[in-house]
Amino acid sequence: MTVTAPPTIMRASVLKRQGEIVLDTLDVPVLDDDQVLVQVAAVGVCGSDIHYYQHGRIGEYVVDHPLVLGHELSGRIAAVGAKVDPARVGQRVAVEPQRPCRTCAQCKAGRYNLCPDIEFYATPPIDGAFTEYVAIQGDFAYEIPDAISDEAAALIEPLSVGIWACQRADIRPGSRVLIAGAGPIGIIAAQTARAFGASEVYISDISPQRLAFALEHGATHALDPLTDRVEGLDVDAFIDASGAPAAVRSGIRAVGPAGRVILVGMGADDVELPVSYLQNREIWLSGVFRYTNTWPLAIQLVAKGLVDLDVLVTGGFPLSEAEAALNAGRQPGQLKAIVYPGR
Amino acid sequence: MTVTAPPTIMRASVLKRQGEIVLDTLDVPVLDDDQVLVQVAAVGVCGSDIHYYQHGRIGEYVVDHPLVLGHELSGRIAAVGAKVDPARVGQRVAVEPQRPCRTCAQCKAGRYNLCPDIEFYATPPIDGAFTEYVAIQGDFAYEIPDAISDEAAALIEPLSVGIWACQRADIRPGSRVLIAGAGPIGIIAAQTARAFGASEVYISDISPQRLAFALEHGATHALDPLTDRVEGLDVDAFIDASGAPAAVRSGIRAVGPAGRVILVGMGADDVELPVSYLQNREIWLSGVFRYTNTWPLAIQLVAKGLVDLDVLVTGGFPLSEAEAALNAGRQPGQLKAIVYPGR
Amino acid sequence: MTVTAPPTIMRASVLKRQGEIVLDTLDVPVLDDDQVLVQVAAVGVCGSDIHYYQHGRIGEYVVDHPLVLGHELSGRIAAVGAKVDPARVGQRVAVEPQRPCRTCAQCKAGRYNLCPDIEFYATPPIDGAFTEYVAIQGDFAYEIPDAISDEAAALIEPLSVGIWACQRADIRPGSRVLIAGAGPIGIIAAQTARAFGASEVYISDISPQRLAFALEHGATHALDPLTDRVEGLDVDAFIDASGAPAAVRSGIRAVGPAGRVILVGMGADDVELPVSYLQNREIWLSGVFRYTNTWPLAIQLVAKGLVDLDVLVTGGFPLSEAEAALNAGRQPGQLKAIVYPGR
Amino acid sequence: MTVTAPPTIMRASVLKRQGEIVLDTLDVPVLDDDQVLVQVAAVGVCGSDIHYYQHGRIGEYVVDHPLVLGHELSGRIAAVGAKVDPARVGQRVAVEPQRPCRTCAQCKAGRYNLCPDIEFYATPPIDGAFTEYVAIQGDFAYEIPDAISDEAAALIEPLSVGIWACQRADIRPGSRVLIAGAGPIGIIAAQTARAFGASEVYISDISPQRLAFALEHGATHALDPLTDRVEGLDVDAFIDASGAPAAVRSGIRAVGPAGRVILVGMGADDVELPVSYLQNREIWLSGVFRYTNTWPLAIQLVAKGLVDLDVLVTGGFPLSEAEAALNAGRQPGQLKAIVYPGR
Repeated sequence: MTVTAPPTIMRASVLKRQGEIVLDTLDVPVLDDDQVLVQVAAVGVCGSDIHYYQHGRIGEYVVDHPLVLGHELSGRIAAVGAKVDPARVGQRVAVEPQRPCRTCAQCKAGRYNLCPDIEFYATPPIDGAFTEYVAIQGDFAYEIPDAISDEAAALIEPLSVGIWACQRADIRPGSRVLIAGAGPIGIIAAQTARAFGASEVYISDISPQRLAFALEHGATHALDPLTDRVEGLDVDAFIDASGAPAAVRSGIRAVGPAGRVILVGMGADDVELPVSYLQNREIWLSGVFRYTNTWPLAIQLVAKGLVDLDVLVTGGFPLSEAEAALNAGRQPGQLKAIVYPGR
Repeated sequence: MTVTAPPTIMRASVLKRQGEIVLDTLDVPVLDDDQVLVQVAAVGVCGSDIHYYQHGRIGEYVVDHPLVLGHELSGRIAAVGAKVDPARVGQRVAVEPQRPCRTCAQCKAGRYNLCPDIEFYATPPIDGAFTEYVAIQGDFAYEIPDAISDEAAALIEPLSVGIWACQRADIRPGSRVLIAGAGPIGIIAAQTARAFGASEVYISDISPQRLAFALEHGATHALDPLTDRVEGLDVDAFIDASGAPAAVRSGIRAVGPAGRVILVGMGADDVELPVSYLQNREIWLSGVFRYTNTWPLAIQLVAKGLVDLDVLVTGGFPLSEAEAALNAGRQPGQLKAIVYPGR
Repeated sequence: MTVTAPPTIMRASVLKRQGEIVLDTLDVPVLDDDQVLVQVAAVGVCGSDIHYYQHGRIGEYVVDHPLVLGHELSGRIAAVGAKVDPARVGQRVAVEPQRPCRTCAQCKAGRYNLCPDIEFYATPPIDGAFTEYVAIQGDFAYEIPDAISDEAAALIEPLSVGIWACQRADIRPGSRVLIAGAGPIGIIAAQTARAFGASEVYISDISPQRLAFALEHGATHALDPLTDRVEGLDVDAFIDASGAPAAVRSGIRAVGPAGRVILVGMGADDVELPVSYLQNREIWLSGVFRYTNTWPLAIQLVAKGLVDLDVLVTGGFPLSEAEAALNAGRQPGQLKAIVYPGR
Repeated sequence: MTVTAPPTIMRASVLKRQGEIVLDTLDVPVLDDDQVLVQVAAVGVCGSDIHYYQHGRIGEYVVDHPLVLGHELSGRIAAVGAKVDPARVGQRVAVEPQRPCRTCAQCKAGRYNLCPDIEFYATPPIDGAFTEYVAIQGDFAYEIPDAISDEAAALIEPLSVGIWACQRADIRPGSRVLIAGAGPIGIIAAQTARAFGASEVYISDISPQRLAFALEHGATHALDPLTDRVEGLDVDAFIDASGAPAAVRSGIRAVGPAGRVILVGMGADDVELPVSYLQNREIWLSGVFRYTNTWPLAIQLVAKGLVDLDVLVTGGFPLSEAEAALNAGRQPGQLKAIVYPGR
């Protein structure tokens, strides 16, 4: 991939409305002074992209105007704003796809993911990365070393979810962890937990194939929720990457005194939880909402081989086949489909 | 109250079985080397005492043998074990009514309340304090200054619950707090939150009388759950002292980003919670299970007048009328009944 | 004080070089989009202002160009940048006199005071507030209620130092604290510690007058370093507001196991410390470098009367007498001189 | 090594006074109810043992009565007290050589290493492990798997120092660390830091041999303090394992904003430190005093091969040659001498 002066228009795969993806032509973004223009190399398909495509909304976020999907991306800097070092043009980068206000109480306290005015790619009305060029503030485009592939660089985004979950779950050397769900986030969380020093990483899933894959990539023990009981494991932390209420409930009962429960998977808005179990053991329960300050560590974990993201890639699609990529993500046995806007 | 050599038998109010309280005679406890014998001066009646009396059980704890109730107590040291300073005889003390093992991982990590082998007063099969004498390990009998009444010294125990809740809720100078339930624990939590520097303490209850009382003792704002919405208050912490699922659910929706929810009240084992609300704001939710290392601060808060426990006392009963004290606790307008085993 | 359209030039008291202050005319600052123009009402004189005036430098910061001193200030918004709500014009504000980059690792982690590119008022080459108008980013100009005087609003800045010191010293309800130095910062720290719930606040100073004043404003015990030993006090925290090596050394020896030492006063670059004492008790030692996110709490503490800043004011000077204000600060018995740029 | 009923007398290597070690006969310890009797298999020689032997004192601790040295030990349980499970007889164990009171404020807060009444092996007047049998409270004798050698099990003690230092230094995945001193503690700290996820571990020492060894065992970069500058490395943490004031001073200047300094090495009681450097970057400085709750993690790190303790062993001696072992520790090129009381 070489960088040339960016054009003024570009191709984009646009979700016109629920279920309808078209290849369209958009204006290339005009940069703010502190932004860079990234020529997109690879974009991972996330469950939220599929959900917008299928249902036209996620909770209160409704696709009522055409929307470009995709928020897991890597690329190369094609142009820079007035206040960004021009030497960055040509740099390979992984993009943190959010724009906090930087002035509210949450931002100034170091929790910019909780900024009430944050803008996030592929979340209405903010466009995402199924397109040739995107704009992002310069400090949210992180240089990546040559050893990291475009695909792995794109998947730094879901790795950031795994890191943030492990940090909030307080995974440390010697921790014992249960993860529910052996999809992409579950497997990434398992690898991350091991990189954080966890000694035992239990993972549960109804798919034997996914469990087998998880055992090769981070998990130390595999559990079938239909036949194996997790209650009483007395783990230090439970990370739910399933979004399934039954998995959440039984997972909580696997946690020991003063342990932590981190809910990553999004399922129903309201879930019945074993509250007295939490109270009697003073277990802390929370969730993750995206991530804060995770890219530098994520890049390092991948560069050092402590986390392997390339193994998650199960398919590649040119921009014109973005809809096929969205559908591929729903097939059993698929983990991550990648869209290549340059192809 | 003067101290004389303790007798070998003593009067006790015993819960024979669900609903049946009798005045009985028991052996005065024989001390371990590290224990003290406390001649009980005052005992507060707690909701859990009433629950055992009415229902014969709390969750997995079943009254299948006669049980002495009462775990909120003060008194005077009447005798000491071989390894305790004999100069302590005669000392007025508030009793922390638990006995952790001190050798398990939880104890050694400073979380002795989560010790799996802990013994706690008035929890089957461990007897409590509706009796003339009790034994406790010396370091769990805390000297109290003269300025603290017997009743207030007994109520250091529920104050400890309030302190522990405020500590876990991370109440700090300037915190904004919502408390559900204006019973004894709610009012104590309100006073404690103010002593911790909270600038706004909202309290909700269906009883106008309780709300009025709460406004005089810690709360800055009173809310009627039937007419006032708490959603959107955006408080830093929500402490539930009601145990009511509806109050828990709406209280959670009052909490702002990165806030905390501490469930003190015990209600149903399983409660439907607004999980996606917690996730999207990265709110931490947990409970309190008794307390750890709270007596020294509690005594100080009372001695300095930052918390007023005497105002909670709404009735006094001799030991022979312990059953009346248990029934009094169920009356509207009653906050704390006190049993005086020496009368 | 009424607000009119700001002029284009303004009067300023300028430190031309070491020891030479002149009243000069400067251009009124041109605003960035995110800034507000503050018509300065009151400016406190800080020890660092006096140090620049007397010595022409502080450490590596050298006054090699004319410099406007003053960084403790309040005023009224006279104009706003393009991205700031115009309704703010006329608002009374306390100014946090720093400008972090908001994009470096420190800023994004919530530690913007440690931003390597931070600009701070009255620190070469950034001008301060001994002038009629200053510019500041809108979120660093905090609205103050009418009940707070201009002088107290200016002194929110040193109060922020005291708050930051107490936060880093982990002052909590029941803490026992030693403060060395009963100058403005020591007295503010004493008041703040009390507002944070400290039960005992020892303060040491060689001046009986200052000690007497401190006892009226926050301290619970006064100590003469020449006759009273602090070693063995076993306090939870020691805050040095003296900068005197001997006070630092003896203060450290007053701290109990797992306690904290926070060095606020700046003295010699290198100081001999009782390292083995720190090691054997696992005491944490650090300093404060300005503050982060303190204005909201500071304003609240003043508004509620928990901290009284007006009592610190011992003199007032019009802008033309700024040099007299700087000299006043060196007199015994003086705490805070205030410069009024509008007079 | 087989276990038989313990005898009543035993051989011990005793430090009679400064510089005088004799082989003597002592009574086998009589057990408290909660203790176990450990037949000692291997004892590591620590710098403090050598210091007592050479100087007859360490700070306030003076050898004024005969003292058995040695506090790094493993063995096999030969007998148990009345309250310990008899099934533990025969168990191979690593011993945590301290006895806290378990009832003071420090113990109950989970900081038992700071217990003012703690007893520690080989610290006057408490005897250590250069002898055939020792008594220890049962929960401080930790079962070790067969895969861990007697020598490595003994060296769990210095590993605990390394773990505690890394925990207090807040070493996390991606941390950059500087360690001064490539002796046993420095090398253990380097290995531990890597096990905790540190990405860069700089180690400095004046011995090229030690540096070469350190690079094979944990360190990623070696520095010669005479020619390499550490200032400006901007590490997250500096761990001093040298006790050399010059190394401490330059090491502090290697730390970036909000970083941590942990002083493990004991040198002079008072050391001149760059205080303004610490203040301006808000660096936290502290030390370690032994350790708390480290054995379980230490055993796990060794069992999983994340830390290799056997490589530290550079000599073995029977009990009768304990003095030679103490002298061996002073030779260049020596890391750890082991005494075998059973030989």
